[in-house]
Amino acid sequence: MYQTLKERVLKANLQLPEYGLVTFTWGNVSEIDRDRGVIAIKPSGVEYSAMTADDIVIIDLDGRRLEGSLNPSSDTATHIELYKAFPTIGGIVHTHSRHATIWAQAGLDIPALGTTHADYFYGDIPCTRMLTADEIANDYEKNTGFVIIEEFQRRGINEVAVPGAIISGHAPFSWGKDAFDAVHNAVVLEEISAMAIGTRALNQQIKVQDELLNKHYMRKHGKNAYYGQKK
Amino acid sequence: MYQTLKERVLKANLQLPEYGLVTFTWGNVSEIDRDRGVIAIKPSGVEYSAMTADDIVIIDLDGRRLEGSLNPSSDTATHIELYKAFPTIGGIVHTHSRHATIWAQAGLDIPALGTTHADYFYGDIPCTRMLTADEIANDYEKNTGFVIIEEFQRRGINEVAVPGAIISGHAPFSWGKDAFDAVHNAVVLEEISAMAIGTRALNQQIKVQDELLNKHYMRKHGKNAYYGQKK
Amino acid sequence: MYQTLKERVLKANLQLPEYGLVTFTWGNVSEIDRDRGVIAIKPSGVEYSAMTADDIVIIDLDGRRLEGSLNPSSDTATHIELYKAFPTIGGIVHTHSRHATIWAQAGLDIPALGTTHADYFYGDIPCTRMLTADEIANDYEKNTGFVIIEEFQRRGINEVAVPGAIISGHAPFSWGKDAFDAVHNAVVLEEISAMAIGTRALNQQIKVQDELLNKHYMRKHGKNAYYGQKK
Amino acid sequence: MYQTLKERVLKANLQLPEYGLVTFTWGNVSEIDRDRGVIAIKPSGVEYSAMTADDIVIIDLDGRRLEGSLNPSSDTATHIELYKAFPTIGGIVHTHSRHATIWAQAGLDIPALGTTHADYFYGDIPCTRMLTADEIANDYEKNTGFVIIEEFQRRGINEVAVPGAIISGHAPFSWGKDAFDAVHNAVVLEEISAMAIGTRALNQQIKVQDELLNKHYMRKHGKNAYYGQKK
Repeated sequence: MYQTLKERVLKANLQLPEYGLVTFTWGNVSEIDRDRGVIAIKPSGVEYSAMTADDIVIIDLDGRRLEGSLNPSSDTATHIELYKAFPTIGGIVHTHSRHATIWAQAGLDIPALGTTHADYFYGDIPCTRMLTADEIANDYEKNTGFVIIEEFQRRGINEVAVPGAIISGHAPFSWGKDAFDAVHNAVVLEEISAMAIGTRALNQQIKVQDELLNKHYMRKHGKNAYYGQKK
Repeated sequence: MYQTLKERVLKANLQLPEYGLVTFTWGNVSEIDRDRGVIAIKPSGVEYSAMTADDIVIIDLDGRRLEGSLNPSSDTATHIELYKAFPTIGGIVHTHSRHATIWAQAGLDIPALGTTHADYFYGDIPCTRMLTADEIANDYEKNTGFVIIEEFQRRGINEVAVPGAIISGHAPFSWGKDAFDAVHNAVVLEEISAMAIGTRALNQQIKVQDELLNKHYMRKHGKNAYYGQKK
Repeated sequence: MYQTLKERVLKANLQLPEYGLVTFTWGNVSEIDRDRGVIAIKPSGVEYSAMTADDIVIIDLDGRRLEGSLNPSSDTATHIELYKAFPTIGGIVHTHSRHATIWAQAGLDIPALGTTHADYFYGDIPCTRMLTADEIANDYEKNTGFVIIEEFQRRGINEVAVPGAIISGHAPFSWGKDAFDAVHNAVVLEEISAMAIGTRALNQQIKVQDELLNKHYMRKHGKNAYYGQKK
Repeated sequence: MYQTLKERVLKANLQLPEYGLVTFTWGNVSEIDRDRGVIAIKPSGVEYSAMTADDIVIIDLDGRRLEGSLNPSSDTATHIELYKAFPTIGGIVHTHSRHATIWAQAGLDIPALGTTHADYFYGDIPCTRMLTADEIANDYEKNTGFVIIEEFQRRGINEVAVPGAIISGHAPFSWGKDAFDAVHNAVVLEEISAMAIGTRALNQQIKVQDELLNKHYMRKHGKNAYYGQKK
């Protein structure tokens, strides 16, 4: 019944090792079908090399399993909260990719230091606050979603303009209009994280012109975007 | 007589170059069959590309060679002491993987800085004290095992909760319930070592919440673990 | 009509992913045929794996498209200005290769710290000044070319002696006698950028002998060059 | 007449790109046949992918070409001086491998910080002094050899115990009992250079026990060596 959706989500999950974003099973991709109110997500702890479309789990927005015999990703509740809070997004990726995780562990926003960043992310990529002991003890994965959402609301960030975040002490989440777009943004997030580490090693103070960041974001994403081909 | 054990240990050794953990012959894997009281271990200084199951050496817990014509790994005495002191472990890996070795050379514990670490290692990964001149001059490899064991005892660390250590000025050892699990932990040890170096470059002070580390370890390893599939 | 030129430029563009210089479509190569007054350049936002010679766009020096149905690279105006200002160059490459981009984001010249650098670049590789708000708002890509040219003129640098530059907050451009030579210089620029980051981490003060830099450049490029084979 | 020697040297040269030690043509390997008084060396500026055994150049110890139609490596004079000064060595490698070159550019000895280093190099790997303007202007490549030799003599270092050096502002040379052994040492030199950079980033002060370094070197190289298999 959800065969196409499952195959898309399988394929998107398999892109994670192809792009070098995961070690072992440390990552997961989901996609939502908002019309049918279902989410397809990677099963928990299954190796990418052995995964088939049938292993992809179909759940509803309350987390109930509709199809599939395996447990969904342990991070499923985070995905659900993000889909609920960010109505424009269609796919979500979680990885522990090395350089984005380094920023998460350092507890610091990934600063917008150049046009590579600005081509995809409009401003710094927020690092959430630390979860409290209570938030960790009860509904941990749900609260992981909440601290991302809280950060976006508190700072007035739009989830389309900044399609990703890092969790303090944990790792990145990214999203996009569908699963493949979310993977694309995960690749970008990792690369600009590496570049930002190197930049900070050379220059602690540098600040790029806001106009340059705006220009590059708008050249690809604004209504007058002129990068790429007409679709 | 030990054909299956040899083939397992061959296969686990061949995973070291596959995972990028070794240069030349700088690593070795062993597995113990506790019922029969024998250990299968890589021969010393033999290239991975040329190794066959027949090259794997079978020794007893006194280091006597029972099968095989080659010398066992020069680090055999370290493996034996770890098997004796840690009755729960079934496999051991030694490598000089780059980032874990950097922490060993720096003489510093690998700090638990995030959930990637906590998913596998419950707390900091201890760096042993430096061996004394006497410990180096006499029974060096045996003493290398002893300083690991001493560190775990002194700090009250359980070898299941922290399946690895680094030797000051030397390199990492990791272990697990069998040879493949030990290799798995060696891969994790290398990755979290790289992440910890980057984290320290960005933030010298950051400390992650103990509750978050506990949560992630217990989510995968505690009796109420819910990561992965029911076995 | 421009089939050979298109095939050369396709091939040179495909070298970018082969050499690990690009993520996704973040790079472009062009080549000029000065006799015919035309430039062949990568189309904007097209994936390397799907690109054919027919996708390569032919434009004149006013940016008018002569052949091809796709939009040329969004950086086309930068290429045009560089071809106009630097009459000796025949090919241009733009990438966001990691380590060169780190220097661009840091807003610092890539210092000549050794013979690897000096074998190809005669002196520091200039980082441009930041573009002004006006330069970003109007004719941004053209002005990106202008700040490179301005920097070379202000410092009296010859474009043959230093076949590349980095744009503050953005990324590198390199060039050469043709498209392949420009790609070659892009590879070198990335490698010496990585080496310079590591060198600065170990030693903030080191300055190499000017005579050594001169010697290596002249050994390969001067009229008494003796590196390589007689052509 | 020197077919076997040429084929060995070709094969050893091809190992440089296999081990990731070279970009383009930035490296060369030679081997000496001391009985016949000839050296086989890579031709200058020829790509590895196109090289054949016939391209390898045979020279005598005065640098006269005995066989081959191509120019020998531009670094030939350095090789010759090292063969003359170090009678025990049979092969020499020069590369610009990234991390060893970083130490050379930093003008610092590569410190012996652990057993990975000590397994191959007995003590710090010396960085030469800077060449003078005169030494660069006249017989530059010969003088590059001389500053290595001077450094070994001044410090009383044996070339067998420390089979490599780095030239200030330039890059590494390594050597061994034959061409393949020299390549092996070049791989080690690169790996321990990377480890030493990371170690210094974590700990500026750490000093490893001399006894540990001695132990590891002697375990592989001393007359009571017990690493590996009996030959």
